[in-house]
Amino acid sequence: MDKKDTALSATDAMLPAHQRRTGRIGSLHEFQQRAARYDGQSLNGPSNDRKVPIAALLRDEAVSDTYIQVGSGRRGSDGSDFLETFRNYGGRRSISGVSLFGGERGRALDKHAYYCRQLKAVSFLILLGVIGGPLNYGIRILYNHLIELREWLVDQAPDYTSKLAVWTAHTVVFSGLGLFFTQLAPVAAGSGVSQMKSILTGIDPRMYLPGYFDLSTFLAKVAGLVCSVGAGLIVGTEGAYVHIMSIVTHHLLKTPLFKGFSVHLNGRLQLLAAACAVGVSSLCSSPIGGVLFSMEVTSTYYLTSNYIKAFISAVSGAVMLRLTLVLAQSKSNLATQAVLKTQFPASPFTIWEIPLYVLLGALLGLLRTAMMWFLRTVAERRSACRKSSQRWKQVLATWIDPLVVAVLTAVLTFVPGEYAQHNSMDDLAILFTEGDLPSTWQVVSKYYALSVLSAVFMFLLPLCITLKIPTGIWVPTFIAGAAFGRMFGEVIATLFPAINVTPGTYALAGAAAFGSAATRALSVAVITLEITAAMSMILPLFCASLAAMAVSNLFKEKSVYDTLLVVSGLPFLPLIDFEPTTTAGDIVEPCLVYITKKTTIARVL
Amino acid sequence: MDKKDTALSATDAMLPAHQRRTGRIGSLHEFQQRAARYDGQSLNGPSNDRKVPIAALLRDEAVSDTYIQVGSGRRGSDGSDFLETFRNYGGRRSISGVSLFGGERGRALDKHAYYCRQLKAVSFLILLGVIGGPLNYGIRILYNHLIELREWLVDQAPDYTSKLAVWTAHTVVFSGLGLFFTQLAPVAAGSGVSQMKSILTGIDPRMYLPGYFDLSTFLAKVAGLVCSVGAGLIVGTEGAYVHIMSIVTHHLLKTPLFKGFSVHLNGRLQLLAAACAVGVSSLCSSPIGGVLFSMEVTSTYYLTSNYIKAFISAVSGAVMLRLTLVLAQSKSNLATQAVLKTQFPASPFTIWEIPLYVLLGALLGLLRTAMMWFLRTVAERRSACRKSSQRWKQVLATWIDPLVVAVLTAVLTFVPGEYAQHNSMDDLAILFTEGDLPSTWQVVSKYYALSVLSAVFMFLLPLCITLKIPTGIWVPTFIAGAAFGRMFGEVIATLFPAINVTPGTYALAGAAAFGSAATRALSVAVITLEITAAMSMILPLFCASLAAMAVSNLFKEKSVYDTLLVVSGLPFLPLIDFEPTTTAGDIVEPCLVYITKKTTIARVL
Repeated sequence: MDKKDTALSATDAMLPAHQRRTGRIGSLHEFQQRAARYDGQSLNGPSNDRKVPIAALLRDEAVSDTYIQVGSGRRGSDGSDFLETFRNYGGRRSISGVSLFGGERGRALDKHAYYCRQLKAVSFLILLGVIGGPLNYGIRILYNHLIELREWLVDQAPDYTSKLAVWTAHTVVFSGLGLFFTQLAPVAAGSGVSQMKSILTGIDPRMYLPGYFDLSTFLAKVAGLVCSVGAGLIVGTEGAYVHIMSIVTHHLLKTPLFKGFSVHLNGRLQLLAAACAVGVSSLCSSPIGGVLFSMEVTSTYYLTSNYIKAFISAVSGAVMLRLTLVLAQSKSNLATQAVLKTQFPASPFTIWEIPLYVLLGALLGLLRTAMMWFLRTVAERRSACRKSSQRWKQVLATWIDPLVVAVLTAVLTFVPGEYAQHNSMDDLAILFTEGDLPSTWQVVSKYYALSVLSAVFMFLLPLCITLKIPTGIWVPTFIAGAAFGRMFGEVIATLFPAINVTPGTYALAGAAAFGSAATRALSVAVITLEITAAMSMILPLFCASLAAMAVSNLFKEKSVYDTLLVVSGLPFLPLIDFEPTTTAGDIVEPCLVYITKKTTIARVL
Repeated sequence: MDKKDTALSATDAMLPAHQRRTGRIGSLHEFQQRAARYDGQSLNGPSNDRKVPIAALLRDEAVSDTYIQVGSGRRGSDGSDFLETFRNYGGRRSISGVSLFGGERGRALDKHAYYCRQLKAVSFLILLGVIGGPLNYGIRILYNHLIELREWLVDQAPDYTSKLAVWTAHTVVFSGLGLFFTQLAPVAAGSGVSQMKSILTGIDPRMYLPGYFDLSTFLAKVAGLVCSVGAGLIVGTEGAYVHIMSIVTHHLLKTPLFKGFSVHLNGRLQLLAAACAVGVSSLCSSPIGGVLFSMEVTSTYYLTSNYIKAFISAVSGAVMLRLTLVLAQSKSNLATQAVLKTQFPASPFTIWEIPLYVLLGALLGLLRTAMMWFLRTVAERRSACRKSSQRWKQVLATWIDPLVVAVLTAVLTFVPGEYAQHNSMDDLAILFTEGDLPSTWQVVSKYYALSVLSAVFMFLLPLCITLKIPTGIWVPTFIAGAAFGRMFGEVIATLFPAINVTPGTYALAGAAAFGSAATRALSVAVITLEITAAMSMILPLFCASLAAMAVSNLFKEKSVYDTLLVVSGLPFLPLIDFEPTTTAGDIVEPCLVYITKKTTIARVL
């Protein structure tokens, strides 16, 4: 039986990663069942016959070692030979860090096959963008229709109370619908970025999230996303896009044409990282930010040849998005220029304002820490409730809790006034202008409106994104940060009129800083630059973002993605900090669990 | 003696990287001398006593293996325990991919020391920028003075012939001066990027480039750079800045305060990568491009925690550059906004023009291949001449050749007319406008002027950058690409007036594409975006750059940096391409040279 096992795993190792059977366990339930079955015989398993092959291996190694030594000893008779060999060696190799799929053309045995492979790789990357751009556009159209439907319904209602009732009903109905779709494929819930972090460390998501790449998950994710964003919940879209694009990539890799790419796990991961870049890039046509985001999601080491691949896909996605917008004759700004075209003077800030931007960033870093504490608490409570064996707790977690959140969201976004009734970014360009805010923001006072808006978003975001629906994180943090930043700018402008600040620039810096601090990804600041096309604001934006990240680094709350990753118990490779005084004993786990090629499942369990 | 050697190397391993003695060999000459001395006794050296420790090591490994197996077997009695341990393990760890110096605060034994170290690291990174910004400004001021001097001298000359004579004399004198300064510290020659590529793979540059980090090299580099750029040679500055910043970093790391950072080679490399980012970023205030450039220079794997460090330094450098400009009351655009503020309409291109940009990129990819072939030929010829034992060849290489190049450069930049008499970017903003070119460009015809300008730069760049002077590559490729792109745009505008193109946008795309293709670094396109603040041009720019890189990838010419690296025979770790059918035998060198801890120098040589 042992022999058969080995043969099986050897065959499996030659199969493409997505077809292997050894790693695949249908569900956690099945896993535990197997565990229970093997439990009795696991103590004295096949541990005895392991010493022989290791010893043999060792003997082999010793032999080859000696052989090579003799070889190098013989060659060493000429002093300059070593250096010469070294140089020749170097000269023969292509070393560009960014060449398409490594260098080494000279060594490829079959040039035709090499070029074919290159062409196929580039087509795959472009194809990712070609699918991603229109797909994202389609999803956007759908949820925008839902939002428009709500506005139309509210307009029909005669008085304030019925308007509020209609508004709330719409949110509750579509949240419920989103929840229902997600129940059909539970892995579709949440942002896709946490899972992507886990996947890019090399862990196959089907091990712990059965059906993660299934077509039904794809449908549930799209339908759930459209409903949850269309319902007006405080959720974004970019994380969900990342998941959607990774499912597309998985299925493209299964087609006969592209089958070869998933032979190596590494190649597969590179393409998944490119998919992640497309997901972000085709959201708002921000290729640089998309690539950097896919890089920051990779936890420890980034293979630099991923970089150019991610760029090809991201640019293709951004071009296709714009092409789709033009073909669809969309009236969105995005069709011709940046999503949020800002209107700032030619020199929107002076170098002396930099400390003010840093202060804004630091304040947002503190707020971010508070929000992250709340998020973790909410996520842990919900997770405990869902796992609870008590029936009422499960019902609470599955149905009552989302209902409460939906009603709360509806009320809190409707009651403050018109300015809070937006959950998309397009309407918020008003914050990033030179002039004063419009009258709808000034009903009570602009300070009041801005603080309410940022407080509502910061409070509702943790509640909404931990629901079992497809979500993203970036758009709400962008809006909350922008409102807070604008308020900061307005306060400075009122208190110190001598400085002559432009409050809109603080809104922009706040949006970038809060987003960066929440996701711990500086690429958010780059995305902000790309979507607002305010390149002259690059220095204040980065100063604020770095300050926010530095302050949030002082506290032990992790980024949104890492928090969700830990709370949901997904496996991942942690980043280990080493100090000069750290020894190996400080780093290793005292209770090590490890698996060799021959370890059977029985022994592990 | 063997024992003493081991003891010595053990002590050395505990010293900071820059103080180790085992790796350090004063000069190549010394290295070869040692080689000659040890030559006789190397054949039957201490190769016999090596089997024992290896066997011992193997036995140890087998023992610990069994031990761990038993351990995991015992733990496995409970089915859910494995998963639980896994999750707890994850929960206890901080995994943010971008936290400042790794995560793992919880494990730090001494929190105070941990925060101190963080603070020191951040101050170091900021300090790099604080030094880099003003330093770059100072160098810029100096060479601008030289260029102004030339203009003033030419203005004094009465007729065309004497103007040409004065122009040529200025170029020859200052090229000669630059050459003289570089002779004082020969490692100061060339761009610093090739060396940085080698350094970031972990190779200590003092092994093969003695004095690379010396203060005298610093002075020679600065003086040589000022002279060569001030002389009007077709060279850039960014590579030299990278070298200058790496010397600064090396010396900062030797100060008592920051000594701890170079204990680990890894930490040292991270800070050198940050220095590279500062070098690029403080050139034109382009932090994103600087960080991406430092990433692309890293050949294979990029540690993602470098990313945030590089950003801190790059932003600090950019802020300090702007602060210096403001304090110096500079009239440069850079003081308040982007270096090359472009003037484009709100929607400078339509999506249907994308194929045209791709075509432009492909053409520039071809031109780049031709230029790179010329560069490699020139560099190899020069290298052969310098190494030649014939006296006249050495004189030719050292003195006659630079003289010829200087005269050629002076004549070719003066004769065509006023439009060719710029080698800085500031005067070329005119190419990136909506309107027509000014009259100085139209003396013969604008097509003539633009083709001459790009041809002159593409021809002179390979000649100039392989001289033994401090150089950079980026600015000349930028100008050549911009001129070619503008010509392409003008031709399209004339031939197909129906498309209604803006020729200036093609100039921008051409500049980005030619720079990217020459350096094989897409960060050049990002830098172009940053310095022109033309964010709305992001899609055409990237499409052109990717097309140029794809076309140049079809030919076997490497990037400028890799070509220089190979020609100058610097050691590096090559990037190996693996195809599905590749076996280990295809990748390994048949004549392997490898070194164990016990190998003496004698055995290697």
